[in-house]
Formats: sequence, C-alpha cells, structure tokens
Amino acid sequence: MLAELIMVGTELLLGEIVDTNSAYMAQQLAELGIDLYYVTRVGDNRGRIAGLVQQAYQRADLVIIAGGLGPTTDDLTKEAVADAFGLGMELCPGALAAIEKRFDLLQISMSDNNRKQAYLPAGAEALPNPKGTAPGVLLEPDKRKAVIMLPGVPVELRAIMNESVIPYIKERLGEKGVGIIYSRVLRFYGLGESNLESMIQDIIEVQSNPTIAPYAGSGEVRLRITAKAASEAEAVALIEPVEKQLVARLGAYFYGYGDEGMETVVARLLLSQGQTVALAESCTGGLISHKLTNVPGSSEYYMQGAVTYSNLAKESILGVDPSLLVRYGAVSDEVARAMAAGVRQWAGTDIGLSVTGIAGPGGGTEKKPVGLVFVGLSHAGGIEAYRHQFVGDRLQVKERAALAALDILRQHLLGSVTQ
Amino acid sequence: MLAELIMVGTELLLGEIVDTNSAYMAQQLAELGIDLYYVTRVGDNRGRIAGLVQQAYQRADLVIIAGGLGPTTDDLTKEAVADAFGLGMELCPGALAAIEKRFDLLQISMSDNNRKQAYLPAGAEALPNPKGTAPGVLLEPDKRKAVIMLPGVPVELRAIMNESVIPYIKERLGEKGVGIIYSRVLRFYGLGESNLESMIQDIIEVQSNPTIAPYAGSGEVRLRITAKAASEAEAVALIEPVEKQLVARLGAYFYGYGDEGMETVVARLLLSQGQTVALAESCTGGLISHKLTNVPGSSEYYMQGAVTYSNLAKESILGVDPSLLVRYGAVSDEVARAMAAGVRQWAGTDIGLSVTGIAGPGGGTEKKPVGLVFVGLSHAGGIEAYRHQFVGDRLQVKERAALAALDILRQHLLGSVTQ
Repeated sequence: MLAELIMVGTELLLGEIVDTNSAYMAQQLAELGIDLYYVTRVGDNRGRIAGLVQQAYQRADLVIIAGGLGPTTDDLTKEAVADAFGLGMELCPGALAAIEKRFDLLQISMSDNNRKQAYLPAGAEALPNPKGTAPGVLLEPDKRKAVIMLPGVPVELRAIMNESVIPYIKERLGEKGVGIIYSRVLRFYGLGESNLESMIQDIIEVQSNPTIAPYAGSGEVRLRITAKAASEAEAVALIEPVEKQLVARLGAYFYGYGDEGMETVVARLLLSQGQTVALAESCTGGLISHKLTNVPGSSEYYMQGAVTYSNLAKESILGVDPSLLVRYGAVSDEVARAMAAGVRQWAGTDIGLSVTGIAGPGGGTEKKPVGLVFVGLSHAGGIEAYRHQFVGDRLQVKERAALAALDILRQHLLGSVTQ
Repeated sequence: MLAELIMVGTELLLGEIVDTNSAYMAQQLAELGIDLYYVTRVGDNRGRIAGLVQQAYQRADLVIIAGGLGPTTDDLTKEAVADAFGLGMELCPGALAAIEKRFDLLQISMSDNNRKQAYLPAGAEALPNPKGTAPGVLLEPDKRKAVIMLPGVPVELRAIMNESVIPYIKERLGEKGVGIIYSRVLRFYGLGESNLESMIQDIIEVQSNPTIAPYAGSGEVRLRITAKAASEAEAVALIEPVEKQLVARLGAYFYGYGDEGMETVVARLLLSQGQTVALAESCTGGLISHKLTNVPGSSEYYMQGAVTYSNLAKESILGVDPSLLVRYGAVSDEVARAMAAGVRQWAGTDIGLSVTGIAGPGGGTEKKPVGLVFVGLSHAGGIEAYRHQFVGDRLQVKERAALAALDILRQHLLGSVTQ
C-alpha cells in the first residue's frame, strides 16, 4: 500500500510552525509497512489543495490531509476535497451532536462557525475527535482508495490517528494479506549516540531482520528494532532475542520502552516497592515534581515537595545550615546533601531527592559554570550527592537536570546507584 | 517572485527526522517577500526527484532543493537535477580545490566519495560551503529562472543560505523592484478561535494589506497580521493601526506578542512592579513553578513554592483548616482560598497563588468531574477564587490550569481581575 501526505496551512509556508505532524504520521505509516513517496505542504488555498488531492489520489492508495478543518473562514480542506471529487457538502448529524456535546461539557456557547465543522463532503464519514471539536473525515470516492482528513492540532491529530485511522488501515491491510512492519523502541540514559552505537556495532552488523537503528532523543538515546513478518506475533518472536542481547550488553543504561518516559518507570518502581519520595528543587524549579505528577496515581508515592529557590527558603523549609551556604555556596555537593536530608525529614518520606544548580544564562563563574548541577539523594541507608555538568540553554539544563535526578532515583530503587 | 522547496531524504519519509530546514527557509523567503505555494518532501529516488524538479520549475521562478548532496551512493540530488534538464555532470575544479583544502585543514585523508562532491550538472556554479564539504549548487537552465541545491545538514544549509543564496535573491529582486512581507503575531487567552474571529469579523473583512489570520494554539488563540510593503518600516506603519484596533476590541484577552509565553509576560509585570509571588500547587504538581522559573532572573520575584499534593501537606505547610477539607473537599473554592492565603503567609510574599483540581484520569465524581480546577489568589487587597472546568487528558488539564492561574495573576497585576 502506498500513501501520500498533504499538510495544509499557510503558517507552515511562512515557517512560523515546524511541522511535527508529518514526522509522526510518517513513523506510524512506516510501522504499518506502508510506503510513502511524497509529503507536500500547501497553504490555505482551495484551488491548490484540490489540485494536490487529485494528483495524490492518482499516485497513491491512501491520501491523508492534515490541517484546515478548523471553524474559521480560512479553513478550506473539506471544501477543497469536495471540489477535487465533484462533491457537494452535507451536514453530518452525528458530528454536529458530538460538537454540541463538547460545548455543553465546556459550559460555553457554540458559535455558527463551529456548526460549519459538522459539514462533510457528500458520502464521507466523520471520525470522532476525542480532544477537540473538528472531527476527522474519511472519504472513499471509488471504494478502492481512501482520502482521510485530520485536524492540524497535534494532540487531536494523534488521537484520531490512534483511535480511527490506524485501525482502519490495519483492517484494509488485513483484507489484502500484506505483511506488517513491527517495531519496538528501547530507551537508554547516560551515554551518547555514537558511544552506544560503538558498544553494539557487532550486533547491528549481523542483523537484517530485525534491523536496529539508533537515534538521539533529548538527553537520551533510543534504539528502534524493526521486524518484517506476516503477523505481530511473528515479528515479536524475531525481535525478542535481539532485544535481550542488547539489554544484556547495555545494562543499567537501558531504562524503558517506547513512549514511557523516565518518570513513568520511576513511578512504577516506587509503587511496586511501596516507597514515598519528597522533592527539594532549586534550579529545576518544579519540573521534576511536574514530571512525577504527570503519572496517574502519583498521590500514592508523592505527597509534598518544595521549590526552594532562595537561600532563605533552603534554610527555613529544609533546615540547611546557613554556614554550609556560606562556606560552599548553594550550588555544592554539601548543600545538595543537606537539602535531600532536609526534605526527607520535612515530608516524612522514605526518600528525599534534591537538585541545586546553575540553569543560566546568568549566575555562572569560572569555578561554577552555567550547567553545573548537584543531585542529592537521602534514604534510610545514607546520603549521597552526584555532580553533573550540562551544556545547553536554561530550559535544556533544567530538562537534563530533571532527567539525571530521576535516573539517580531509578538506579537507587533498582539497587544499582554508583557514584 | 514565486519559490518552491523540495526536501530530499528517505529519513524524512520515515519520520525519523523532523524537518526544521524548510521552516527556516520558508521564514527567510517570507521576509524577502517571496511567495511559496508548495513544499514537497521526497525520498532518495533519482527518478522521483527529477520529476518533482521539472514540475516545480514549471510552477515557480526559484526552486530550492535541500538534501542529497552528501558523499554516499544514496545522495542523488545533483544527478537528478541534471536528468531533469538533460544535462551531463562535470568536474568543477574550484569546488574540488575547496574540498581538498577542507580535508587538509582537518588533517584527515580524503576518500574518492568526497571527490564526487565536486561534480556538478553542466553549466552550474558551486556555492561555497563554509561549514562542510558539500558545496551548494546554482543552476540557471534558461537564465530567467534558478534551481539551487543545498546540503541537508542544517548548519551547512543555513551558512550557504546566508552567504550565497539570500544575496543572490536580493540581487535578482533588486532588478525586479519587489518589496517584502512582514508579520506580527498577537496572542490571546480566555476565548476560543471562533469566538475571537466573530468578535473581529468586520475588521478582518475590510483588510487587504495587512491581512489578519487567526490560528489556535494550545489553550490560546493567535492573530497574525501580515503586511506587504517596500520596507520593514512601511510594513510596520501598515500593521500598527490595525493592531491598535484589534487590541482595543479584544481588551484583556490580549496578553502578548510572538514567541513570548504567558509566563514571560507575568514575569515582566512582577519585576516592573517589584512584587513577589509564592505558589501552592496541588493538581498542577509544580508546573506553574516550572514555567515561572523558565524566565531568566526569576529569583527576583520567586523565592519558594510548595507542591501540596496530600491533604496533610495542605494542613501542615499551608495551615489549611482540616474542617474545610472535610466540609468542602480539597477541590473547592474554600480550600483554594485557604491555600492561597496560607502560601502567602508561609513564604512572606506579596501574592499567594494556589491551584487545586482533578487532573484525572481517576478521582472524578458527578459533582466534581475530572477537569474541575479552582485557582486561589491572595494579596494585600483580599482573597479570591476562580472556578474552571477544563476538558482533556491529565497533561492537558495540568497545562490549561497552569495557563489559567498565570492569566489570573496577570490580570491581577494589571488591575483587571474580574470574577
């Protein structure tokens, strides 16, 4: 099966938005084993969209168009698709009911513009949008091929892809008896892409099915293991021995799978061990706490935390000895330890985790440059501190410090913390 | 002048790389006032690249192709362009000398593959690459239109754009006496895209230069005002009266410009007024604190905050009366007020800001559904609470609650908070 993507939106042609949707959709299609030859970006122009849809429908079996389903007058995708196939527009009562229900839930009044979102090209089917008002649209002009329209808001596009489009494609692929491409992503923290690759070069080289591809994420590395097979079960059977070999080689650098972030892995360990944790954050400013509370059920292991930005807050809340702050400075091994011990006592938890550092852009010195971060860990068995030097802007330093602190907590819970 | 972009690389079609090059080039072209109707992504396939180049050369005056200039066998862009115009390949001695010089500088030996990078379509000119080995290429097949090839490595692409391509375009434009496109983005919080549009429909309709385009962001709406003019100063003079009219109409919904988030606007207000704030976060779990500390210099107005996830933490840290928690529940107007007052006292700040709510997916009831959030605000003039009902998953509820709380703080600082 051959697919083609059309990304609609004048903002994409002005360079104001980086198009992340098409990379996401391309990945999903690749995992299903669907070929993609062209991705085209076009502005909010009815005639040009219609022309591209006709061209793509000739070249491909499946055309997916993202963007231009909003309620405003420059949203023209559905009208352009109708033009491309000589169809009129029809009100879809089910789509209208879903939009009305959403406005009821939000307790706000619905404008006439939103009613426009319930009109579809004649003969098309609405695909429910669990995250917004614009339904996706499925049109099968001659029953052999499909044209799918999705809203451009990434969270809405992904929800409709997952709940409607991927199941639809799988069903169509099943009818044709085509094999699948299945992949599993392993996530690693604590070493760079080229170091990781050189550690497993021999394993990569002997593989043809599955294949192994490393790629760098934000402060971490991922390995995608991809197998071609007749079924998911067969693909998994090809992948698992290779996965075992990789995990054995890379040990504690491996932390999780797929979309599961470090915080989800840490949360699972805390829950399974019945342990609680409290956080004292200085330079991360609440980010670690935010990440840990992104995991549903976090109230089981996380009850309270403190953002102690000032020295005074470190003293009054965490009981850090003022003389430590004077002698070693707030960004030091000693203060990180005192903060971790202090927050553990303050909150009455099993574990205290602290971060103190220089996020920048100001505040760095020759001895303590921007990006210097200390993580403190206090638990029944003792108190430790870990020094990191990160590179990047303020947000990157915060993100990397948060990831480092969570990894230290993970390794502690696994009993594998090493200095 | 009309341009068209072709982005080459199979990795782009597998979704392994997010294409940031085309957003960069689109911005540069927009600033030069050059229209862009299509951007097409294609894999490393000689025939398909050649076909696209022919199509683009018919539609546009300037075709820029990025990617596929590397030394390996799957780099085929120059050969495909030569095919498109029926040209052979020729060694360019200047390009070869530049490549050899670069390898000398790096003190590494040059492979035969790198020699391939000095071959260009017959009649083309090399554009120097100050950051890598692959030169850019300029071809003017019939002297009226141009085809430019650039390497896909972002730092190399940008260097050649700046040093060769933009000067070339300016020279060509100067010959034609064409102006520029300039745009300004206004950001609004507190009303949906379609409501906003209907409030300013009359202003949008009478505009032709500048034009006004609304688009939805995450929990907010943006308006882009775009002017075509001979110079930036002239464009600004066209935009400003329209901007004033929009801001006057939309009042307190307007909060900022361009890339500046709500937290940056709030930070500026706090700094200019010399006020300090403390946060008591329950359902947002540290997110507001994280956002506020993303702004450099945040230690001037933010010293400490508490994440009080459990009822016990709300009592012991913030001094919330246990009877309020029993009578009204943790997610209530009364507890939000008590948290705001408590955190203000605890931290000794001018303002206390609190959030308590149900982020989901669990914990909702019929009376208090998932997405119900109360924001509390305590200051020298009194204590208020604001009720919100959000829709979305756990992360969306957290994000929207954080934005709502920051907007309440903003409106308070502007003296315009209304219930």
